[in-house]
Amino acid sequence: MSVSSCTQIVLAARPQGAVRASDFRIETTALPAPADGEIQLQVRYLSLDPYMRGRMDERKSYAPPVALGSPMEGESVGQVIASRHPDYAVGDIVLARTGWRSHANVPAHGKRKLDPALAPITTGLGVLGMPGFTAYSGLRFIGQPKAGETLVVAAASGPVGSLVGQLAQIQGARAIGIAGGPDKCAYVKDELGFDAVVDHRDPDFPARLARACPDGVDVYFENVGGAVWQAVLPLLNKYARVPVCGLIADYDGAVSDGPNRLPATMREVLSRSLTLRGFINTEFAEHYPDFLREVGQAVASGRIRYREDIVDGLENAPRAFMGMLKGANFGKLLVRVS
Amino acid sequence: MSVSSCTQIVLAARPQGAVRASDFRIETTALPAPADGEIQLQVRYLSLDPYMRGRMDERKSYAPPVALGSPMEGESVGQVIASRHPDYAVGDIVLARTGWRSHANVPAHGKRKLDPALAPITTGLGVLGMPGFTAYSGLRFIGQPKAGETLVVAAASGPVGSLVGQLAQIQGARAIGIAGGPDKCAYVKDELGFDAVVDHRDPDFPARLARACPDGVDVYFENVGGAVWQAVLPLLNKYARVPVCGLIADYDGAVSDGPNRLPATMREVLSRSLTLRGFINTEFAEHYPDFLREVGQAVASGRIRYREDIVDGLENAPRAFMGMLKGANFGKLLVRVS
Repeated sequence: MSVSSCTQIVLAARPQGAVRASDFRIETTALPAPADGEIQLQVRYLSLDPYMRGRMDERKSYAPPVALGSPMEGESVGQVIASRHPDYAVGDIVLARTGWRSHANVPAHGKRKLDPALAPITTGLGVLGMPGFTAYSGLRFIGQPKAGETLVVAAASGPVGSLVGQLAQIQGARAIGIAGGPDKCAYVKDELGFDAVVDHRDPDFPARLARACPDGVDVYFENVGGAVWQAVLPLLNKYARVPVCGLIADYDGAVSDGPNRLPATMREVLSRSLTLRGFINTEFAEHYPDFLREVGQAVASGRIRYREDIVDGLENAPRAFMGMLKGANFGKLLVRVS
Repeated sequence: MSVSSCTQIVLAARPQGAVRASDFRIETTALPAPADGEIQLQVRYLSLDPYMRGRMDERKSYAPPVALGSPMEGESVGQVIASRHPDYAVGDIVLARTGWRSHANVPAHGKRKLDPALAPITTGLGVLGMPGFTAYSGLRFIGQPKAGETLVVAAASGPVGSLVGQLAQIQGARAIGIAGGPDKCAYVKDELGFDAVVDHRDPDFPARLARACPDGVDVYFENVGGAVWQAVLPLLNKYARVPVCGLIADYDGAVSDGPNRLPATMREVLSRSLTLRGFINTEFAEHYPDFLREVGQAVASGRIRYREDIVDGLENAPRAFMGMLKGANFGKLLVRVS
């Protein structure tokens, strides 16, 4: 069942402003037999996430950039098709950072196996994977919403935002979602059960957000930046906490024009004793088992809901990814690779 | 010994940009006899502090603005000249928020008495008062420097910065000071014993600061903002902590011209998991006794040093205050009122 070649999508050029199709290239490459301790995976689902945009730039962020000509990085769910490790058998489903590829050899050690009987395997890339743990850890260790407090999160129909709001409600807080367009807003309010939702495309967005938060905002889970941050900032209460896990609105550049908003922001940090705290979920890795147990149970019981947006075919990953950066996906974006 | 009138300095106009002498007015006003529970104070020393600049603006900060025509607010050391409270006797020295006045009636309850035998009474407004507690609490509860880490603080010859660096060294951290001009730099390095000092007026300031911090910066105690923040930001290490207690460089306006530095700042917050936390020392008031005991002992033993810059005469308070906003003072700025 092992293969000797695979399809992959590589970084062809570093984006100048918005990502374009020509920044990617699809190619076929040889795949050797797995080495000792490795497993060979047939990728079933590839995860597309906003953080990947940062890896396309030269500038070092919390991880080194993808090299030109190298496969785009990413996590996927794959099925073992050849194994050189005693703990992994052909047919096993595992999570691995294969990159944007149809097949890959990866070191087997420590790879998490997924049991399709417990939850759909796609959830390992979403609500029960990295995005879910980002929501869980940012909220538990930084945001810390208390009963009666108000939490705001953007991209509320997405994999991080949807869980942030639902977990905050379980803590007894009011959850206010921000989403783009009537369909996503209806989903956030009616299906996820957020206390309120505001459409960021509404010309009256800042005023509507203020009306949805009559007691101000105690936790703003920052995953977008840009205009949403500007609307939230005046609403933050004294001692508000702002976990910062992403800035998708700022990823495509063209954000340094206009007035310098830093001094006014810092004045608010000072005068309202705000906490801004950037984080990457890996910092809290020791709490991953807690997350899987707690959120896994809540997903199994139906208490926590989630939504996936699945695109067919690895060749469509670049287009889906570019759409996601503009908010075109509706739910956790995945590519069905095989 | 009680008086029936006093001299005071009132806010005559809200500053347009930099503070000007015409924004203040000195006047004589009637002072009634103290009411039951009050004490009448003859002000000995008035404290001048950067936060007062914020109170001159209309915009609400962490405290309401000073009303036009009202006395400028501020803390002072005063001597009781009439008492209507059994616990306070004529001659007692107390700390009180009298404002910029020669005499004032204040409620006696809870006012801290100063013992001139323990420490000079001026220290109650500096190293053993509000500025000292700002340094202590911001460092203990937010900055948390550890042995071997590097701390940077600006206005290092001033009452907050000088204590921040010395306390960080007691924790085993390296303390790097920033000050303006050779005299202050020499004082910070030679008399306070900071590990290094950098002159922010040096045209090569950012590069010199970087050289003084070969292992990056783990704690930046933010009390100035502006260009110093821009020089420190690229040096911050992963998980660096930034207690924000003041932004003196930004107080006088003219800081909202482009480029917009907020997106780049937030990207650093994210990619290096930074913590920015505004605070006012009153938030930690329950720890004030710890501060007085610990820092009081260190001051008494000579382990912690401080410097005061004393100006004579209440009428000179506006000029001294305007100078402080430009860094003209050298040490904790006080006005000897009587």
